[in-house]
Amino acid sequence: MRRWNGWGDESAAMALPGSAAALLAELLGPSAPLPDAGLAEVIARVPESRLGGGDHHLLETDPELRVRHARGQSLPDWLAMRSGEFGVFPDAVARPESGEQVRELLRLAAERDFIVIPYGGGTSVAGHITPAAGARPVVTLALTKMNRLLDLDETSGIATFGAGARGPEVEAQLRARGYTLGHFPQSWELSTLGGWVASRSSGQQSLRYGRIEQLFAGGRVETPAGPLDLPTFPASAAGPDLRELVLGSEGRLGVITEVRVRVSPLPEDERFETLFLPDWQRAFGCARELARQRIGLSMLRVANPAETFTGLRLAVDESQLGWFERLLRLRGVGEGKCMLTLGYTGSTVAVAETRRQARRILKRHGAVGLMAGKLGAKWAHGRFRYPYLREALWQLGYAVDTFETALDWSRVDGYIHDVEARVAAALADHGERVHVFTHLSHVYRQGSSAYTSYLYRVGDDYDTTLARWRTVKAVASQAIVDWGGTISHQHGVGRDHAPYLAAEKGELGLDALASLFHRFDPDGRMNPGVLLPEDRS
Amino acid sequence: MRRWNGWGDESAAMALPGSAAALLAELLGPSAPLPDAGLAEVIARVPESRLGGGDHHLLETDPELRVRHARGQSLPDWLAMRSGEFGVFPDAVARPESGEQVRELLRLAAERDFIVIPYGGGTSVAGHITPAAGARPVVTLALTKMNRLLDLDETSGIATFGAGARGPEVEAQLRARGYTLGHFPQSWELSTLGGWVASRSSGQQSLRYGRIEQLFAGGRVETPAGPLDLPTFPASAAGPDLRELVLGSEGRLGVITEVRVRVSPLPEDERFETLFLPDWQRAFGCARELARQRIGLSMLRVANPAETFTGLRLAVDESQLGWFERLLRLRGVGEGKCMLTLGYTGSTVAVAETRRQARRILKRHGAVGLMAGKLGAKWAHGRFRYPYLREALWQLGYAVDTFETALDWSRVDGYIHDVEARVAAALADHGERVHVFTHLSHVYRQGSSAYTSYLYRVGDDYDTTLARWRTVKAVASQAIVDWGGTISHQHGVGRDHAPYLAAEKGELGLDALASLFHRFDPDGRMNPGVLLPEDRS
Repeated sequence: MRRWNGWGDESAAMALPGSAAALLAELLGPSAPLPDAGLAEVIARVPESRLGGGDHHLLETDPELRVRHARGQSLPDWLAMRSGEFGVFPDAVARPESGEQVRELLRLAAERDFIVIPYGGGTSVAGHITPAAGARPVVTLALTKMNRLLDLDETSGIATFGAGARGPEVEAQLRARGYTLGHFPQSWELSTLGGWVASRSSGQQSLRYGRIEQLFAGGRVETPAGPLDLPTFPASAAGPDLRELVLGSEGRLGVITEVRVRVSPLPEDERFETLFLPDWQRAFGCARELARQRIGLSMLRVANPAETFTGLRLAVDESQLGWFERLLRLRGVGEGKCMLTLGYTGSTVAVAETRRQARRILKRHGAVGLMAGKLGAKWAHGRFRYPYLREALWQLGYAVDTFETALDWSRVDGYIHDVEARVAAALADHGERVHVFTHLSHVYRQGSSAYTSYLYRVGDDYDTTLARWRTVKAVASQAIVDWGGTISHQHGVGRDHAPYLAAEKGELGLDALASLFHRFDPDGRMNPGVLLPEDRS
Repeated sequence: MRRWNGWGDESAAMALPGSAAALLAELLGPSAPLPDAGLAEVIARVPESRLGGGDHHLLETDPELRVRHARGQSLPDWLAMRSGEFGVFPDAVARPESGEQVRELLRLAAERDFIVIPYGGGTSVAGHITPAAGARPVVTLALTKMNRLLDLDETSGIATFGAGARGPEVEAQLRARGYTLGHFPQSWELSTLGGWVASRSSGQQSLRYGRIEQLFAGGRVETPAGPLDLPTFPASAAGPDLRELVLGSEGRLGVITEVRVRVSPLPEDERFETLFLPDWQRAFGCARELARQRIGLSMLRVANPAETFTGLRLAVDESQLGWFERLLRLRGVGEGKCMLTLGYTGSTVAVAETRRQARRILKRHGAVGLMAGKLGAKWAHGRFRYPYLREALWQLGYAVDTFETALDWSRVDGYIHDVEARVAAALADHGERVHVFTHLSHVYRQGSSAYTSYLYRVGDDYDTTLARWRTVKAVASQAIVDWGGTISHQHGVGRDHAPYLAAEKGELGLDALASLFHRFDPDGRMNPGVLLPEDRS
């Protein structure tokens, strides 16, 4: 069963090595976990629904269901769930089985004046699906039951899915026909096709398959003003592309019910390799060169020294790490080393050719491979495990969160140094340290994402813990804005990033988006307060 | 000097082989050219400007300048220029030198209530820049003088240009620094960066470099509601992408003044090859397979049998063609053959590898190469010559026009057969034949563009000639809509395609675009009547 107050399935957990606790104590000071609230206790606190019981066959008001659809997976969401202080719950959950039922729900929303929050996998880390207090009742509309492959045009490579299909549901249904979508965000186990579109998601192998923007070929959105059908074309010059209004719309213009995606035949070959470079400058230069060349990698991730150090120590016991690091040192890679993971996907011939070309560049930058294929396979095996880390750290009394951006190459390096320095010092006034590390998760010819994780000690209570998060979040977001990065490369805007959006869209740009949403949703019923700042919502 | 009444420079012309006239007479019946109006005569007919003379230092009312900025290059534009019956002229032409001057012009437009038509290279083939009769004066705002490379970020590969830079100006300034944009639409000699963005242009080598959507990284638009700045990010999940509102906006929301583009180092190697396949089914299958595989071609064009036949005969004299076709026949490629042109661009190693991979596929589909490299080089040499063909045919009394769309692979073949049959018969009621042929100009994994050319005999007068065009255009556009194609893959909407836009955007989609434009241009001053149908403008 899915965890009601954290990530993933209850049966799945990430075990930290024995040495991890000592490392964390050394980095951040010793800690102890905060007490968790119990599910029964939280359920007992759920207020009566403002939409009444059994009011309409599509509105479910069962308290546990409302608890399970009340929050996403941001750190504030996590703290709310662990403390049991949810604040606001949706008044009802709707789980329609068809576009017709979605339309019925939108009609009902107009009749009874309730707010609608479209809900995919509930994996938002930016407050996309958190209801706010207000006079209007709130219905969380979960696409869970609309998860089927509806059509596959093999000639064109276009698959049509119900928007609620989760990553594994998408891939299993395609695999049975010999295809893959190839979209693997870290949230893949739980997140959905519709959610990916609504939040402009990026998968780990976007170098090959593209971001969701490139995979999303068309589909259907049910809006308060009627349905919006997006036909599929390979390309078009017929005015602005309406798909681009839906991508990143975060539920503001309607409910995405059907998604048509560009799929690929299952690749003949796929492999991952993990190598090490002696220092950040060389790792960074190597990543940039690999990205600028068109050599057909399917993935490239580069951890900075702090992330390499931390990642290894949270994955492997200190004692076992020793010999591996000694061997690396013998080959000139010691303190300050950076881990680089590459993906190769395609025909056997293409994979071989890409590896040849990559190796030439890697060698020139001093990359060292030591069990490169084995480590790569280990990465692939654990590729969706990172979100479980929060649970493991939580048990030890530490909080972890991440933030991410993307910048042109000319700014990436300066930004990372600066943001890490600012975040490391962010809790100095609280008398607390922050441990921070970064990797490039998605590289482009023009620049790169920068994905930063940070750990800090929980406070004596939930409020203090949340206050620390707020402080770090503000510092990090300001650094992104100062460096001209986007406020999100892959997580979206939600409620948490909305205050920073004007920095990149401009006031006029935000006005334009507000006009646009207003046309689809004149009564401001669709997920208000998300994406655009409240005063424009 | 640029031709005032047709394509390109006055000194450049395309010579048809001697046998062309006989071929045309055989296909369409004998013909004779219509009389051309003279420039002096047209200038004499230009009415007084409603904006007065010497009224403002940025408004030029010289009649010849107004003639030279009155029309694009659609066939109706051509007929207007050749007959001298322009109908409406802009009241003034403005040629600002800076964003500040553009802002000044927009302020002036509000003060004096005139319409503004942004003008790049004047190469529209869909009526984007044709002024309409109306109460408000019209100013054509030509970006001609804003044509410089303003900045080059070599680390990120981002170049900033004035939006008025023409193709050769873009490439010359980049080449001096070792870079290329790689965007080569057929209009490249005259069309501009801003125009490409405003109309969602696609270059011949978009398989490598991407369409303008992929090249356009950001920039600046001056709108009646103020400036819209689009910062550059390699990617972003921060809500809908405002670049996508500007792409294809066709002047409706403002004037694009600065364009930031993703540039590439000049390639080490580039070559083109032309091969022949025995029939359409094999050529089509080969093109689809080449497109579906990710093998790194920079270009792929496939002519159907009618285009192969016509193209060869309009390029080479019948007598010289004989031995070539005999040699092809000896290798199994005769009647019904299809010409396929491939582009390879990149490092020497990559070009060699791509050719190896392409050859495997080509061979399997029965492709025959006979002087493949020489013919490819000939194609490259004449790659921007096709627009000159209209002049050459005109002298013989024939009109030529083209239309184009893009469809998913599952519909491309059926569409081409049907649209050619409908167009060939379109003028039967007029007692005229139409000669029609098609090539795939841009292939994608999902589908392909289909670029159709057609020739017909001019009428006894200009009105008859235009009426014939209208009939064919309506038949062709309806076929595109019936087959679920986009009304334009690379030429844009303008005035000519606006009536067909609802078929793909939906009424709600058009409403949304209208709301959006209204936010930027509340008084409907920017290029009204273009893109959206008149009743929404």
